[in-house]
Amino acid sequence: MAHLDLTAAPPRDGAEWPQGAAYMDGAFMPASEARLPASDWGYRRSDVTYDVVGVWDGCFFRLDDHIARFRASMDRLRLRPRESNAEIREILIECVRRSGLRSAYVAMDCLRGTPPPGAPRLPSSARPWLLCQALPWTWVASPEQQRRGVTLMIPEVRRIPMSSFDARVKNFHWGDLTEGLFEAEAEGADFPILLDGDGHVTEGPGFNVFSVSGGVVSSPRSGALEGITRRSVFELCEEIGVPFQQRDISEAEFVAADEIFCATTAGGIWGARRIGERVLGNDAPGPLTEQLRTRYWRRRADGWHATPVTV
Amino acid sequence: MAHLDLTAAPPRDGAEWPQGAAYMDGAFMPASEARLPASDWGYRRSDVTYDVVGVWDGCFFRLDDHIARFRASMDRLRLRPRESNAEIREILIECVRRSGLRSAYVAMDCLRGTPPPGAPRLPSSARPWLLCQALPWTWVASPEQQRRGVTLMIPEVRRIPMSSFDARVKNFHWGDLTEGLFEAEAEGADFPILLDGDGHVTEGPGFNVFSVSGGVVSSPRSGALEGITRRSVFELCEEIGVPFQQRDISEAEFVAADEIFCATTAGGIWGARRIGERVLGNDAPGPLTEQLRTRYWRRRADGWHATPVTV
Repeated sequence: MAHLDLTAAPPRDGAEWPQGAAYMDGAFMPASEARLPASDWGYRRSDVTYDVVGVWDGCFFRLDDHIARFRASMDRLRLRPRESNAEIREILIECVRRSGLRSAYVAMDCLRGTPPPGAPRLPSSARPWLLCQALPWTWVASPEQQRRGVTLMIPEVRRIPMSSFDARVKNFHWGDLTEGLFEAEAEGADFPILLDGDGHVTEGPGFNVFSVSGGVVSSPRSGALEGITRRSVFELCEEIGVPFQQRDISEAEFVAADEIFCATTAGGIWGARRIGERVLGNDAPGPLTEQLRTRYWRRRADGWHATPVTV
Repeated sequence: MAHLDLTAAPPRDGAEWPQGAAYMDGAFMPASEARLPASDWGYRRSDVTYDVVGVWDGCFFRLDDHIARFRASMDRLRLRPRESNAEIREILIECVRRSGLRSAYVAMDCLRGTPPPGAPRLPSSARPWLLCQALPWTWVASPEQQRRGVTLMIPEVRRIPMSSFDARVKNFHWGDLTEGLFEAEAEGADFPILLDGDGHVTEGPGFNVFSVSGGVVSSPRSGALEGITRRSVFELCEEIGVPFQQRDISEAEFVAADEIFCATTAGGIWGARRIGERVLGNDAPGPLTEQLRTRYWRRRADGWHATPVTV
C-alpha cells in the first residue's frame, strides 16, 4: 500500500491570524479573543448545538452537507440565529481566509444566549447567536495511531439515550464520553466505545464506529451522530462494491468482528488493532479498513466533495 | 397565615459591583467581564460541575454544605482546581462583599480547562480552574407564582439516566430539562417534571420535587440532585413531626398526590396548584406546603444555618 502522507499543510505566508480566526455574533477576531459570557445558557445549560467541517490542503470537505446538518440540529433545538445558511457559508470561508490556514478544524456553534433577568427565565426568551472558528487542524487519532491502529475498550458508562437527548443533534453533553475516556485511560486503551442501555454499540468520543464481518460493513442504527464522514464511508463502499448496513450491533458481535474502524471529520478513517483483551487480525488495522482509508484520502486529493477556499 | 414578604434586599449603598462580582482562576472582576475561552472543555464538552449557594438578607444559607457537595462533585469528575475548600469559602464571601449584594445567587463552577494541542487530547491533561460569581438574586418561581402556586406537567422527554451521568453531580447537561421547558411552555404550564426511563418521577429544571399523600412527604430516591434545600425540607418535617421518605414515585401516584411542592436554593419552597389536567386541592398550594414554606423563611430570618457576610 502506498505511503499516506498526513502532514497538515502550513498556513499561508503572511496570514493574518494563523493561530485561528473567529466570528462572534457579527464580529471577526483572532480565535484567542473568542470568549463567551459566563451567563450564556450555551455554557450554563449546554443549550447549544454545533458542527465541524474540515479543511485540508485548502479545500472544505462537504461544506454544504455540514451546514445543512447544523441547520437541522438548530431547528431541532429551536435555535434560530439571525444568519442564513448562505451567510454561515460565507462566514466560515471568511474565517479560514483570515486565518490563512490551509488545513483547519472549522467549527460553527449556535448558543442559546442569555434570557432577560426575572422569572420565568425561559429558553424561548433568549436570542440565539453564532460562534464560528477556523482553528489549526487537530487529529482525533494521531497519524502514528492511525498507522499502527488504535486500541479500544467498552467502558461501564452508557451513552445518553435518545429518549433524553437526540444524539443526531451534535451536542456538548459529553459527560458520558468524558467518563469513558477516563475509563479507557485507566485501562491503557486509546478510546472508549460506548454501549446504549440495551447493550448495543453507539459511538466513541467524537467519532462513528464500524465493524466488518464476512466482508460486510456495519455501523450502529441508533444512538449515534449521523456522521458525514460515515456517509462518505458508505459512498466509498458503494464505489468499491462492498455491502454496508446500519443496524443494531451487540457488544459480543462487535468485539468478535473481523475488523473495526472509526470515522470522523477531524480524522478521516482509522482502524483499530485491539478491543479490550482481543487482538484484531495481526494487531494492526484490517485490509478493508486500509483500503477505505487510502481511498478516502486519494478521493479527497482528487477534489471529491471539495469547496476551495479562495483567498 | 402571615404575609410572607419575599422582596430581595437592595445592594449596600456605594457597592463596588452591584450588578455582580466574579472570580476567575485567581482574579476578581465585575461579573459582566467574566468571559470563558471558547476552547475550554467546560463549554465545549460541558466538562464542568457547579454549585449554587444563596445569600438572603446578608447571610449565606448552609455555605459549608454547598462547598462540601461541590467538592464531592469535583472529585467524582476528577476535577481538581488549585483552591482548597477554605479558599473557596473566602472567595465566595469576597465576591459577595465586592458586589455589595445583600441577596445574591452565588455560583461556583469548576471547568476542565483546555488540554494542550496535539492528539491524544485527554481530559486528564488539562488544568481545571474555578469560576465564582455573586449575582443579583433571581427566583426560579417568582413570588407571585409562589403565592398562587405553579402549574406543572410531565413531558415526553426522559431525564438522563444515572448510568450515563450521575445526577448527584450538579451539571449543565440540561438538554432534557430544556426540552421539558419547551414542552411545558407549549402546554401553557410553568414547569416540567421529568420521569426516568422506568417512569419514576425525578426532578424539574433546577429543583427537587415532593409529593404529600396521607400526611407523608415523599421525594424521589434516585435520578435527582441530592438537594440541600431538600435536606432542609426534611429537617423542617422533623421539627414539626411530619414523616418523610425518599423512594421511587410513579407518575400515577405523583399526579394523584394530596399536595405537590418544589424546592431549590434559588427559590426556597413553593407549591403547585395543578399538574397536567389535575387541579390540586382548591387550585392553590396545599396546607402542609404552605406550613413548610412559611417555616422555612421564618427559620432563615432566625439565622438558621446562616453565615453572615461581614463587610
